[in-house]
Amino acid sequence: MARAIAVSERVRGTTSPNPPVGCVILDAGGEPVGEGATRPPGQAHAEVVALARAGDRARGGTAVVTLEPCNHHGRTPPCTGALLAAGVARVVHAVADPNPGAAGGADALRAAGVEVGSGLLAEEVERGPLRAWLHFARTGRPHVTWKYAATLDGRVAAADGTGRWIGSAESRAESHDLRAKVDAVVVGTGTVRVDDPRLTARPTGPGPAPARQPLRVVVGTGDLPAGARVLDDEAETVHVRTHDPDVVLGELARRGVVDVLLEGGPTLAGAFTAARRVDRVLAYLVPRLSGSGAPAMRDTGVSAVAGAVGMVVEQVSMCGPDVRVSAVPDR
Amino acid sequence: MARAIAVSERVRGTTSPNPPVGCVILDAGGEPVGEGATRPPGQAHAEVVALARAGDRARGGTAVVTLEPCNHHGRTPPCTGALLAAGVARVVHAVADPNPGAAGGADALRAAGVEVGSGLLAEEVERGPLRAWLHFARTGRPHVTWKYAATLDGRVAAADGTGRWIGSAESRAESHDLRAKVDAVVVGTGTVRVDDPRLTARPTGPGPAPARQPLRVVVGTGDLPAGARVLDDEAETVHVRTHDPDVVLGELARRGVVDVLLEGGPTLAGAFTAARRVDRVLAYLVPRLSGSGAPAMRDTGVSAVAGAVGMVVEQVSMCGPDVRVSAVPDR
Repeated sequence: MARAIAVSERVRGTTSPNPPVGCVILDAGGEPVGEGATRPPGQAHAEVVALARAGDRARGGTAVVTLEPCNHHGRTPPCTGALLAAGVARVVHAVADPNPGAAGGADALRAAGVEVGSGLLAEEVERGPLRAWLHFARTGRPHVTWKYAATLDGRVAAADGTGRWIGSAESRAESHDLRAKVDAVVVGTGTVRVDDPRLTARPTGPGPAPARQPLRVVVGTGDLPAGARVLDDEAETVHVRTHDPDVVLGELARRGVVDVLLEGGPTLAGAFTAARRVDRVLAYLVPRLSGSGAPAMRDTGVSAVAGAVGMVVEQVSMCGPDVRVSAVPDR
Repeated sequence: MARAIAVSERVRGTTSPNPPVGCVILDAGGEPVGEGATRPPGQAHAEVVALARAGDRARGGTAVVTLEPCNHHGRTPPCTGALLAAGVARVVHAVADPNPGAAGGADALRAAGVEVGSGLLAEEVERGPLRAWLHFARTGRPHVTWKYAATLDGRVAAADGTGRWIGSAESRAESHDLRAKVDAVVVGTGTVRVDDPRLTARPTGPGPAPARQPLRVVVGTGDLPAGARVLDDEAETVHVRTHDPDVVLGELARRGVVDVLLEGGPTLAGAFTAARRVDRVLAYLVPRLSGSGAPAMRDTGVSAVAGAVGMVVEQVSMCGPDVRVSAVPDR
């Protein structure tokens, strides 16, 4: 399953609105004979890719897959059918499919005499490659990760407004990797006016540029400056003229966006937080003391700390010299 | 040496202006036969306490001590003399004494035929029990730890001013332990007016109250409210009528204070930071998003993040649900 997770990580950002699934086929003797991950929408699912690689060696073997195989005809035939046709004897999946339309795969396989196991490394998959998609399947809303870099005392910019990326080179590189793995990057019109970011995923090392770019989304009722970098042709850009996070997320869902990286400034971050539409906070805390400049977030409508939005720290780690904190709402 | 460090930790906060030193005596066969830590000022040093417990068994043995034994007549006779009189054959210390008046202990012992080793667990001692005292010995200034609890977005209080202790119960308990281990707790007059803290070390569990209380120090030119809790008789309080951190530290040094816990609000924290008088930051980051209220620090005179005070993260760990970050200036 760890291998299936690793395989699925490679296709993150390329499969929405489908889930980035990974699959490994073992032959009857337990040897890996094929692996695969979800192809872009309309193309083969992970199981079908892996089965094609395994060929006849799948017969009597095991399919290890991060998500319960689908049981419905969408743009592609159901994976359960492909697994049965290949003669697989056993299927082990990490998490069940919460999608009413596609679920029932495990039952269908069992009914056809296949042994089905589930739950293996489920938490790792739920927190990792399938986090956004599972959230989308359960709520109908894209998953929002608010990412920011702030000084230890919570400032994202100094008093003179400088602060385009205050994190370390390591955090900056990770930030570009993140952009390449999501469907959309969201900022407010204020950030476009002040910082004029490109919002593309760019390699920070000698490697090649990412094969695809996230959708660039600018939120706010104001106009964009004519020469703004987000209007260049490096990636698609959409301007959503609203201040309501749910209107933004509705528009993004309509466009097949599942995984959103919110890189907005303090005001947009505050609006999403107040609307309870931040599903994960990813904070890069830079070991510096500033004492002035913009705070990381403002205007959430919270009037006392007792009423602040409670979170649970999921993981704390170092990213170069910075402290990386991942936290999720305490629901 | 690990044992000597543990023994010294127990007397932290009771020895200033002397260092909290720990000593373990091993007999000629390497068995521990006595241990001791620095007694309050004017009383025995760690070596003398440990030697008294070891008695004749120290002869031909080893003294393991966190600091190079002193070689001068202060209020007590030199420890080197006590070690020689006891017939110790070997001395191993963690860190050398930087104090010109007391140093030379290792040389004196060697001249008398004692084998001397040094550097064992030196970093642990330098960062731990002797950190404040070594800083004081090198700079003449008390060591300042700025401790605060802030939400993940860097707020110490909500817009309505509420925020007396926003950390978890675990962080609160640790905060009281810290107070019991330092010589002085410093706040500004603003904190006294708004929060009216007691600033004493109080047990948060069923245990007994600490045997001693830190000096309570209020900084600022304004008067204290007549009924302020810091004016009660639970501990001594001094009001230093200045805004200059160096004046405060000079006054505290005069009073024999070596280890200072700065618990001040944003303005006092900013003044100490701008003056480069914060020697360690101990931040408890509470997994909450506030979006309003006071920032952790303000007015440092830093006008751009590039000019912010650079720090190095020393340790990151959890304290209950909170993230504990210890950082020191990047000098």
